[in-house]
Amino acid sequence: MSLSEFDIIAKYFATQTAREDVRLGIGDDAAVLDGRSDRKLVLAMDTIVEGVHFPARTDAPDVGYRALAVNLSDLAAMGAEPSWMSLSLSIPRADEQWIEGFAQGLFELASEHRVQLIGGDTVRGPLVVTIQVGGWVESDRWLTRAGAKIGDALFVSGVPGEAAAGLQALQDGSTVQWADILKQRFLRPTPRVHLGRALRTIASSAMDISDGLLTDLRKLCAASQCGAILDVDRLPISSALGSVPEDKRLEYALAGGDDYELLFTAPPDAVLSGIGADVAITQIGTIVESRKGVRCVRNGTAFTPSGRGWDHFNE
Amino acid sequence: MSLSEFDIIAKYFATQTAREDVRLGIGDDAAVLDGRSDRKLVLAMDTIVEGVHFPARTDAPDVGYRALAVNLSDLAAMGAEPSWMSLSLSIPRADEQWIEGFAQGLFELASEHRVQLIGGDTVRGPLVVTIQVGGWVESDRWLTRAGAKIGDALFVSGVPGEAAAGLQALQDGSTVQWADILKQRFLRPTPRVHLGRALRTIASSAMDISDGLLTDLRKLCAASQCGAILDVDRLPISSALGSVPEDKRLEYALAGGDDYELLFTAPPDAVLSGIGADVAITQIGTIVESRKGVRCVRNGTAFTPSGRGWDHFNE
Repeated sequence: MSLSEFDIIAKYFATQTAREDVRLGIGDDAAVLDGRSDRKLVLAMDTIVEGVHFPARTDAPDVGYRALAVNLSDLAAMGAEPSWMSLSLSIPRADEQWIEGFAQGLFELASEHRVQLIGGDTVRGPLVVTIQVGGWVESDRWLTRAGAKIGDALFVSGVPGEAAAGLQALQDGSTVQWADILKQRFLRPTPRVHLGRALRTIASSAMDISDGLLTDLRKLCAASQCGAILDVDRLPISSALGSVPEDKRLEYALAGGDDYELLFTAPPDAVLSGIGADVAITQIGTIVESRKGVRCVRNGTAFTPSGRGWDHFNE
Repeated sequence: MSLSEFDIIAKYFATQTAREDVRLGIGDDAAVLDGRSDRKLVLAMDTIVEGVHFPARTDAPDVGYRALAVNLSDLAAMGAEPSWMSLSLSIPRADEQWIEGFAQGLFELASEHRVQLIGGDTVRGPLVVTIQVGGWVESDRWLTRAGAKIGDALFVSGVPGEAAAGLQALQDGSTVQWADILKQRFLRPTPRVHLGRALRTIASSAMDISDGLLTDLRKLCAASQCGAILDVDRLPISSALGSVPEDKRLEYALAGGDDYELLFTAPPDAVLSGIGADVAITQIGTIVESRKGVRCVRNGTAFTPSGRGWDHFNE
């Protein structure tokens, strides 16, 4: 089988729901979209590499789904509404079955968020997927990492740690009862787009957790020039990790990475009830003065977790 | 030496000229830019892979320059003004000298066009560079491949074929007198941004030549539902290719690829004098009815060139 680059694009990537604001999509030198002056343009780009960000021989639909999910998560962290994406797909060979599966996973998530593929590049090379997702946010306010204030409450969505446990299960080839749920949490993270939109006017700062809760909290605190106390006892406990020793569970939760949950702060009097309709939200700490640093407490005393955050050059 | 991803970003990619329309650049989950309703948003994304799109061990500054040039060329082909870029850089290891060189080449071209790096991703993996460049074009008119009309004149900028000869010289390790000039034409193509802007209201169709003049002309004709007669005798002759046999020179020009010149059409009465102030423009043919296909003539008779266009899965 030999598929040219153009055939691949035409067959699997060109047919999809069309947005009205896309004036020219796939097939020309560039895409053309309506501009708008009542919104800010929000752009994020993330890359996933086989063997680095996901195990070799991961199912193609999961690769497609995950490549978009990690990008939508970035837009969620800004409070933005995603609208379109560009895709760079580097694959070793034009394996039609693989491409079909990849496109199926990609468009499953894209259609859920009305995100249109507007262009990109398909090249021969090692399996590397880069997506650039764009969208819009109201001009009066968007979320950043930089707005946390002393006294703010610190929250997290979902259950950090499940994705890291899922990656471990994938690497171990684990087939125990809860393994499939955890693997899905790694392979198909749910970008918290609706939560991000709802937090836009409520949260004082926000980011998504990709490198591990503690590492990312440090980044949020650095950007906000503040410190934080993270109360380990308040961390949501995964029912799927019930049989995992507590220290290991905490390591997954604090240092595991790949959660793509939202970490955010809000004033102590903020009304958050009902905001995370599609995901649980938990207060896990408090923002404090910068000089106090980022600290964990457990049973009321200082706690130094094992493990560390994820840095793609220092693993 | 061990540089974390964050150190790399901070050291080499974070400091540069800032544009006023970039509200939030590198360092958060996504970038935030001013929208505008008087313009259309134009977005292009191209990927280059070591060993596929450029030879292994190409100097880092040339890799950085070329990665941006091929993207700016896409915006040029739309008549758009480039404004910002996102960069996905997958590199095998955090080699500080390489990264410094890459950034130097990238920003050399970026600053020439006032393009700001607003974000992206740096990951460990095979050497793959993806850039997404964005910009704006006037809402009343932009260039596409689809507007060529029967009777239009067909033009090309610069000297197609020099880049392909340059790639050959790189692969052969050629050191003859003109080799350096040709190598530069491959490694550092000049995106025809100013020409594209000037053509916006004059050209009936346009695209950039990346896959070879003849292959790309076929795409333009397919998009415009027309045919074309390409007069081979009119092709600009490279003085650097004076010692190359004519058949080989024609193969470079017609099938070589990597030129990143603009191929465009304009009504026969269009005034083009003075438009390509920074590059020569040559009429090389005429647009004809679709049923006549895309044909070459040489010395007034039909001509079938050797070689073929560049397709990254069928080389």
